[in-house]
Amino acid sequence: MDDMTRIAFVGLGAMGLPMASNLLSNGFAVTGYDLNAKALDALENAGGERALTATEAASGADILILMVVNAAQAEAVLFEGGALESLRPDGVVALMATCPPSAVEAIDDRVRNAGRRLIDSPVSGGVAGAKAATLTIMAAGPKDTFEMAKPAFDALGDKVFHVGERPGQGAMVKTVNQLLCGVHIAVVAEAFALAAKVGVDLRILLEIMSGSSASSWMLKDRGPRMLETEPEVTSAVDIFVKDLGIVLDAGRDVKAALPLAAAAQQMFLATSGRGDGKADDSQVIRSYLALNGIK
Amino acid sequence: MDDMTRIAFVGLGAMGLPMASNLLSNGFAVTGYDLNAKALDALENAGGERALTATEAASGADILILMVVNAAQAEAVLFEGGALESLRPDGVVALMATCPPSAVEAIDDRVRNAGRRLIDSPVSGGVAGAKAATLTIMAAGPKDTFEMAKPAFDALGDKVFHVGERPGQGAMVKTVNQLLCGVHIAVVAEAFALAAKVGVDLRILLEIMSGSSASSWMLKDRGPRMLETEPEVTSAVDIFVKDLGIVLDAGRDVKAALPLAAAAQQMFLATSGRGDGKADDSQVIRSYLALNGIK
Repeated sequence: MDDMTRIAFVGLGAMGLPMASNLLSNGFAVTGYDLNAKALDALENAGGERALTATEAASGADILILMVVNAAQAEAVLFEGGALESLRPDGVVALMATCPPSAVEAIDDRVRNAGRRLIDSPVSGGVAGAKAATLTIMAAGPKDTFEMAKPAFDALGDKVFHVGERPGQGAMVKTVNQLLCGVHIAVVAEAFALAAKVGVDLRILLEIMSGSSASSWMLKDRGPRMLETEPEVTSAVDIFVKDLGIVLDAGRDVKAALPLAAAAQQMFLATSGRGDGKADDSQVIRSYLALNGIK
Repeated sequence: MDDMTRIAFVGLGAMGLPMASNLLSNGFAVTGYDLNAKALDALENAGGERALTATEAASGADILILMVVNAAQAEAVLFEGGALESLRPDGVVALMATCPPSAVEAIDDRVRNAGRRLIDSPVSGGVAGAKAATLTIMAAGPKDTFEMAKPAFDALGDKVFHVGERPGQGAMVKTVNQLLCGVHIAVVAEAFALAAKVGVDLRILLEIMSGSSASSWMLKDRGPRMLETEPEVTSAVDIFVKDLGIVLDAGRDVKAALPLAAAAQQMFLATSGRGDGKADDSQVIRSYLALNGIK
């Protein structure tokens, strides 16, 4: 990993903390910042250093990893606190939080205007992937910037892709991922509601579909919970209201019609509108049951 | 298999012929009928008997298997030619062709009015599954009727399900299968078109999505052919125009709104309308490229 060894890590949440630990165990020097003092304690226990501000963490670092909640937080860290300026002059900002593609493009503009470099690098794989260092990383930016960050990415995930030369393209790949996930969940609900209307046993239906060309990752994961009345919440309806909102905003930004994503979002939105936004996202099926008058 | 050993098999096409052969190799006596004399020659070579008419084939049989093209052909065989009447009085009609649920219900009414029994038993798995006896069989009808046909079904497939007590429910399960398949193909096209609009490398996108929660059987199967300009035709656009038509008809019959299936069918329909109905169904992506002005 030549001289790219000093990493500033901002955002030590459920995913960020295990990611920082994996960097430490791969020989990187990590200085972290988070509003949560317990997260900083945990980072120190793992061999890292704590900083009092994001700007202090970034001071002289080679790579500044942002694993914050959204684009607004990323902007606050970079431009308001001054973290961008305190980064090493040839340092790289790795924006790994999930952000709308247009927001990433805007951040990239400001980073480049300040003479720094950004690698747009959202992840998928969740907390489990963060802990096991098996994340998928969808990185976009100039090839040489990607190569500078790659040793760090390799410590975080085992599926590291350079998806394009322009920041925003990584966020778009993540957006497309969410488009497919959201529609796949909604269409399972649509299919189950049709079958339920004629009294087909949904457990047998799920078993058949799971082994046929009708199968999807979401069918196998969300399908069983669709058959429960109050399933455990693994990811909430409101998350897909938000994520499919990002999908549709991205489509609007680039002027692309997305009829299936738009229809699917309406079903999640209606579920939330009836008061079920905090329910497991499999419960989008309640919108189909309500719509089609199925008990 | 007690005394259920004499089978009449009508419809010895690409799937029917290997299915009849599998029955013969499992000890059933099979008399077949098809308009195609070569298929009857092949049946004889496999140890079966040929009949000059469907009614002759059905004469005294325990089970009459219909593997014809559609519901209209099934009705012609059963009611116009007289095959139903020539079946053994306690014999079973196994309707294994893909038919709309409402058509199966209508056929069942007429079969029961004639004092006979129907098992609604469509299949999935294609020619490969027919040859390897690995078909999925989605059977609906009274349990005792199902049990009478089950030994024959076990010779044809390795995933034999009793999905409900009422004929029409099997056809509905097959319909739901096609709903999921059709929407899954269309949404991959929608996702790829969005990514293409911003210049994301679709080969890398496909690789990422294939290994993520965005994956589906159709993404992995049709996705690669979506990236080709003139891919080999494994199943035509017009097949999904028809199959999603059956889906929407089924929804209309039971008064169930199916917003995603309806939107997906429009994209297949438009593809056909531009003259690409005979193209591989992956080419529904051409509708998204046309719609969104992507070259």
